[in-house]
Amino acid sequence: MPGHRIDLNADLGEGVGDDAAMMPLISSANIACGFHAGTPTVLVRSCASAVEHGVRIGAQVSYPDLAGFGRRFMDVSPADLLADVLYQVGALRALAASVGGTVDYVKPHGALYNAVVHHEAQARALVTAADTLGLPLMTLPGSVAQRFALEAGVTVIAEAFADRGYTREATLVPRTEPHALLTDSDEIAARVVDLARTGRIRAVDGTVLDADVESVCLHGDTPGAVEHARAVRAALDAAGVVVTR
Amino acid sequence: MPGHRIDLNADLGEGVGDDAAMMPLISSANIACGFHAGTPTVLVRSCASAVEHGVRIGAQVSYPDLAGFGRRFMDVSPADLLADVLYQVGALRALAASVGGTVDYVKPHGALYNAVVHHEAQARALVTAADTLGLPLMTLPGSVAQRFALEAGVTVIAEAFADRGYTREATLVPRTEPHALLTDSDEIAARVVDLARTGRIRAVDGTVLDADVESVCLHGDTPGAVEHARAVRAALDAAGVVVTR
Amino acid sequence: MPGHRIDLNADLGEGVGDDAAMMPLISSANIACGFHAGTPTVLVRSCASAVEHGVRIGAQVSYPDLAGFGRRFMDVSPADLLADVLYQVGALRALAASVGGTVDYVKPHGALYNAVVHHEAQARALVTAADTLGLPLMTLPGSVAQRFALEAGVTVIAEAFADRGYTREATLVPRTEPHALLTDSDEIAARVVDLARTGRIRAVDGTVLDADVESVCLHGDTPGAVEHARAVRAALDAAGVVVTR
Amino acid sequence: MPGHRIDLNADLGEGVGDDAAMMPLISSANIACGFHAGTPTVLVRSCASAVEHGVRIGAQVSYPDLAGFGRRFMDVSPADLLADVLYQVGALRALAASVGGTVDYVKPHGALYNAVVHHEAQARALVTAADTLGLPLMTLPGSVAQRFALEAGVTVIAEAFADRGYTREATLVPRTEPHALLTDSDEIAARVVDLARTGRIRAVDGTVLDADVESVCLHGDTPGAVEHARAVRAALDAAGVVVTR
Repeated sequence: MPGHRIDLNADLGEGVGDDAAMMPLISSANIACGFHAGTPTVLVRSCASAVEHGVRIGAQVSYPDLAGFGRRFMDVSPADLLADVLYQVGALRALAASVGGTVDYVKPHGALYNAVVHHEAQARALVTAADTLGLPLMTLPGSVAQRFALEAGVTVIAEAFADRGYTREATLVPRTEPHALLTDSDEIAARVVDLARTGRIRAVDGTVLDADVESVCLHGDTPGAVEHARAVRAALDAAGVVVTR
Repeated sequence: MPGHRIDLNADLGEGVGDDAAMMPLISSANIACGFHAGTPTVLVRSCASAVEHGVRIGAQVSYPDLAGFGRRFMDVSPADLLADVLYQVGALRALAASVGGTVDYVKPHGALYNAVVHHEAQARALVTAADTLGLPLMTLPGSVAQRFALEAGVTVIAEAFADRGYTREATLVPRTEPHALLTDSDEIAARVVDLARTGRIRAVDGTVLDADVESVCLHGDTPGAVEHARAVRAALDAAGVVVTR
Repeated sequence: MPGHRIDLNADLGEGVGDDAAMMPLISSANIACGFHAGTPTVLVRSCASAVEHGVRIGAQVSYPDLAGFGRRFMDVSPADLLADVLYQVGALRALAASVGGTVDYVKPHGALYNAVVHHEAQARALVTAADTLGLPLMTLPGSVAQRFALEAGVTVIAEAFADRGYTREATLVPRTEPHALLTDSDEIAARVVDLARTGRIRAVDGTVLDADVESVCLHGDTPGAVEHARAVRAALDAAGVVVTR
Repeated sequence: MPGHRIDLNADLGEGVGDDAAMMPLISSANIACGFHAGTPTVLVRSCASAVEHGVRIGAQVSYPDLAGFGRRFMDVSPADLLADVLYQVGALRALAASVGGTVDYVKPHGALYNAVVHHEAQARALVTAADTLGLPLMTLPGSVAQRFALEAGVTVIAEAFADRGYTREATLVPRTEPHALLTDSDEIAARVVDLARTGRIRAVDGTVLDADVESVCLHGDTPGAVEHARAVRAALDAAGVVVTR
């Protein structure tokens, strides 16, 4: 229901970015689970902070790749991926529970996020994991993972990216191309307000796209990330859009 | 209630020892959680095997020490240990649940097992973890961990070791001393039957000790481990002692 | 120079297979470097054993994937792969030196071995690493890595597989197809003797292939591995072929 | 030879602190080796930067404890510690060599640094490693490691801490006590100049201590670290003390 509310999500517990500054601005925290970043001690603190701020907790699951921060595709088997996701989410659930929180969705991180846009076997394993855990899956609209999730009856939380350029086909402009990343806080804020109020987002060529999303991802580790987030939040507040899960 | 029943537990999912041979002989499986051994894929298979054999699953938690198989004391803070234990048990719970099982107790592994016999801060953190998780703690009778558990209202599963020599003070004979390890299958089997029937165990000097235990630990990775386990099980069966959790 | 000598290599230090049984049979040991298996303590022991048996030491380098035993392709950047290989070989060099040995070649493990057959960027990074280290590269004849190595002036140690079926195009029969793996010790031994004496190997369809190789890889972790290796060694000895690097 | 020159060392390649700002101020870089921090890719870049700035490279070796940043004592055996140190230094050597550098000393990190002040078995293993590698050992004056190094003929690089309080017994004031950490840049700079010129350092109670050190450690990851370092360097330059290895 565009116009009145939007969810803002960001990655936390990764030991990069300014978690303390981001937490008051968002409604959903994608908390790392130790496979790409985060020790149990860091993660339980992130959960406690989320609980304190009334922020929804999501498990940000990754390939087992600490050295590469989960940013490198790994050709893991479906059985391995399923077990890896269950392991990570289960671990975060216990940490969240210990501080009075719950894990309310699963979001793939980094290379896994990109893989499940098109990699059928991995997308299916991820969906099976979410289904087994009884949790919604936060994904990119149009991804194979989203399609499999809908087919399997797994709730989808579709998201847009506040600071990424979109093509007229509604895909993200590759990072190697111009306009891949928006860097002006006001522009970023304006398009999130627009998205929240109209349900539409403007592509880099000016085409207006229907963006059927419930959540908007704010990056936390790019230059100016906190400023962008503050601008987005302030603009939403000023426009009367409620930031909520 | 000595005489009629005893629990037999063994360590599984560690990639050492013969899990397939041990599983049918035991009633409780201490399954590794990835910190000293075991990948998620291996662990979920161990859980599935336990479920299939009607064997109770315990989470065998460790220091984060894959290189040392969890056998080296680590001076971790209580906050770190608490978070580490919650993380591991949560992870195993999700894996167990995915194959229709539950994690029903926590057992410390290796150097952590030895530490919580006397290390008060770590014992307290471990007990807090078990309490937070709502799970019983399997420990050595007389350990600080056991005392703290009882004080905190955490259920204790006291265990004896089938193949370890006991001093007249009811402590284990250090491995560096003679009679630390029993190696004769018949002798091992006879003392477990004795223990199950009488609740007593004979020390290396002949003293008869009251051993208030519910479970007996069978080692799975020592030479002759499977033979010992088979002898114990056969002797218990012959004596009419039910092997059950 | 076919006819008189052949190098036999096998993977060691991985904690699987029977290193003690294999070491006396081979002339080159591919010793793990900690990224897919092996702790420094295990590796230095493997080096010491190789030195004791007069066996040449090679560094078996891998993707950083302990959980997957290096068997899963990782889309690592050339810069990461170069640094990872230097790191691993440097580490093994120091361990080998401490027991009077030297690392004399580099061999990729598992998924990396397969990747550099065709993946140009990774093959180039691996060759750059070998070149930087001043070490020969052990590879599959016909691989992109071999071609790049020859172009770069990096010495190549071409190898055949004792127990793998070959297609008439001199590639390995995929493991998913029939005749991928030979399992009869006598057959395996006979073809290695044939290869050593004639420089030729018979494909699964009977075609006789020129196999320009200096070394033959004996698997150490398959069922019957030690028996196969003993049969190969005995047959070579009986045929008067010297097993030497 | 107090008065004319002093070595300034700092920890780099750990992914914390501002390496780029520190490198031009120091003469020796303690570069992590991957056991407490640092990936091969990060480490080779740190080495390249050190080479570019004419800064001496030391291998900062640690317990294998990524989760704890090497800050937790581990009861590793001498054999494990020896192999771990060889492994780490060998790895860094290969990375340094690839960018035209050499590793010129070994410095223990974190909990290992503290352990070898008094833990004889670990100190001896560390000294054996340095001896095997043919490298000097950077340590705390008065430590057991220093004593063993001198006995074994291993060169010692004794160091003082720019921002740590000293007791009248020339030990560091524990971090839990007042005056453990100096926080005023001018005061830190003044005492380093004093130390360089006179070879003496003032204890927290005013006692003047003979500090027989060649190097001064600048912390890189404390609040104000870069400011302190700049103040120290500027004060040394102004006083005509040459900063050099």
